[in-house]
Amino acid sequence: MTIRIVRTVAELRATLEPHRAGRIGFVPTMGALHEGHLSLLRAAGAENTTVVLSLFVNPTQFGDAADLEAYPRTEEADIASAAHVGTHVVFAPSAAEMYPAGFATTVSVDGALTATLEGAVRGRSHFDGVATVVAKLLLAVQPDRAYFGAKDAQQVVVVRRMVTDLRIPVEIVACPTSRDADGLARSSRNARLSAEERTLAAAVPRSLRAAQDAFASGIRDPHRLTALVHEGLAHAGLDQEYVEIVDADSLEPLTDIARPALLALAVRVGQVRLIDNVVLDPGVDDRIVLERSTA
Amino acid sequence: MTIRIVRTVAELRATLEPHRAGRIGFVPTMGALHEGHLSLLRAAGAENTTVVLSLFVNPTQFGDAADLEAYPRTEEADIASAAHVGTHVVFAPSAAEMYPAGFATTVSVDGALTATLEGAVRGRSHFDGVATVVAKLLLAVQPDRAYFGAKDAQQVVVVRRMVTDLRIPVEIVACPTSRDADGLARSSRNARLSAEERTLAAAVPRSLRAAQDAFASGIRDPHRLTALVHEGLAHAGLDQEYVEIVDADSLEPLTDIARPALLALAVRVGQVRLIDNVVLDPGVDDRIVLERSTA
Repeated sequence: MTIRIVRTVAELRATLEPHRAGRIGFVPTMGALHEGHLSLLRAAGAENTTVVLSLFVNPTQFGDAADLEAYPRTEEADIASAAHVGTHVVFAPSAAEMYPAGFATTVSVDGALTATLEGAVRGRSHFDGVATVVAKLLLAVQPDRAYFGAKDAQQVVVVRRMVTDLRIPVEIVACPTSRDADGLARSSRNARLSAEERTLAAAVPRSLRAAQDAFASGIRDPHRLTALVHEGLAHAGLDQEYVEIVDADSLEPLTDIARPALLALAVRVGQVRLIDNVVLDPGVDDRIVLERSTA
Repeated sequence: MTIRIVRTVAELRATLEPHRAGRIGFVPTMGALHEGHLSLLRAAGAENTTVVLSLFVNPTQFGDAADLEAYPRTEEADIASAAHVGTHVVFAPSAAEMYPAGFATTVSVDGALTATLEGAVRGRSHFDGVATVVAKLLLAVQPDRAYFGAKDAQQVVVVRRMVTDLRIPVEIVACPTSRDADGLARSSRNARLSAEERTLAAAVPRSLRAAQDAFASGIRDPHRLTALVHEGLAHAGLDQEYVEIVDADSLEPLTDIARPALLALAVRVGQVRLIDNVVLDPGVDDRIVLERSTA
């Protein structure tokens, strides 16, 4: 099957109609595809008969116009990569197709899920933008399963909440964060790092790994674990926005880690904002593998 | 086919699965069914193979706890009436089924659509409650068509906007307001009017009809038309919340009626709040029929 590019919801629905007897797997992205996205497309291909990718740089989830402007757009290369891993349909709408004149609807998720971490830094409107565009994409594609990367851990929690609350009939699948050999989480923003910044950025996975090691050795106090991360990031001179340990489901602050916790952080390396996270689960040892790990 | 009562979304979906080859028509209600609701169920029956009714007094769209408390609940009689007009499935969930612990999602429609008329009096949270519950119900039932009464004109506009914006795959059908012989729009709240209040309430359709007559005679100035309504309502001593003429689609204020306009009002008769409206369309004469009309 040749890969099919569609620009409107009407075309998308007509294209998918004959495929609804099988299972449709959907990977929503903002394009600038990297190995992390491709791993989501492969996961979708392994579990479904039809794979749909969306490419849409959603303006409503950017608080900062410069960040939106700088976001990489590489559609031709994205389509070639997607075709290579067996994607069947690419939905690449214009902003006018997604937000036509008169558009007035917002889907919001309230409470700790959106007030903390990224919500605290980027403002709640960031997750309003995410929840609204994901709801629209899920209702446009109507997939059986939708795939998200664990790097955007809070996004996964917010999307799951929204899907459960609104009863959108889809299974949300979170796939492990894809990492380069030095442990850095793959991100479309990494392309904007200079060689020197890239070396500094490797302190992010190293610091998270240090906290994982301490956790594996029995340390359960969130303050001691975040202190290790702060120290590792400071050592590389990175500008820290937050380093927090919260309940992995409710995103509420924790005083002790008796159940799965999310250790999440955001830093700035030069002009580039990076986020990363690991789950600290008393039952599972899932440490980041680092190229030159001393462990 | 016997009427089937279901209490959960899971039961509902399982029940509807075999009917998806045909067309599903859906009538969402807060129960206390009257002839207006039955006319919606009949319209759904005429155009679809399966008719689904929901009965759910949605707490999130009531600003006033006393109003919520006083809202009539007559489930057994509702099911009997619905069965009589050929309803196949009744979805009557509990509040806990619709809003389980941890529920955190709101669907909002912004701008003039929700800031004016009912939104101005009841607060924007009223339409947040409406948009959220209607989105949930539409996604739970997944009907081909959903039927709403024109009496709640603003609700129809808000629901259409939300369905268009989120790309919910359903056709929204607005049915004409059902009226008693004296012209009073049928409403579950009418049951709470005393005989004397009921007589006073007939000033509502009489006043709207007076404005329709003036409009038909060529008067296009919204102020002159609303003045007629104010006068008619004042003559009956009714407590007026608003009487407004707005664009029928955008709900923006008008200075002249060159395209379809909505003349909408809310009054209080004793403890009971009533709303009503007519469309003033330069192309269509659709005047309310009154029992003792002198026209």
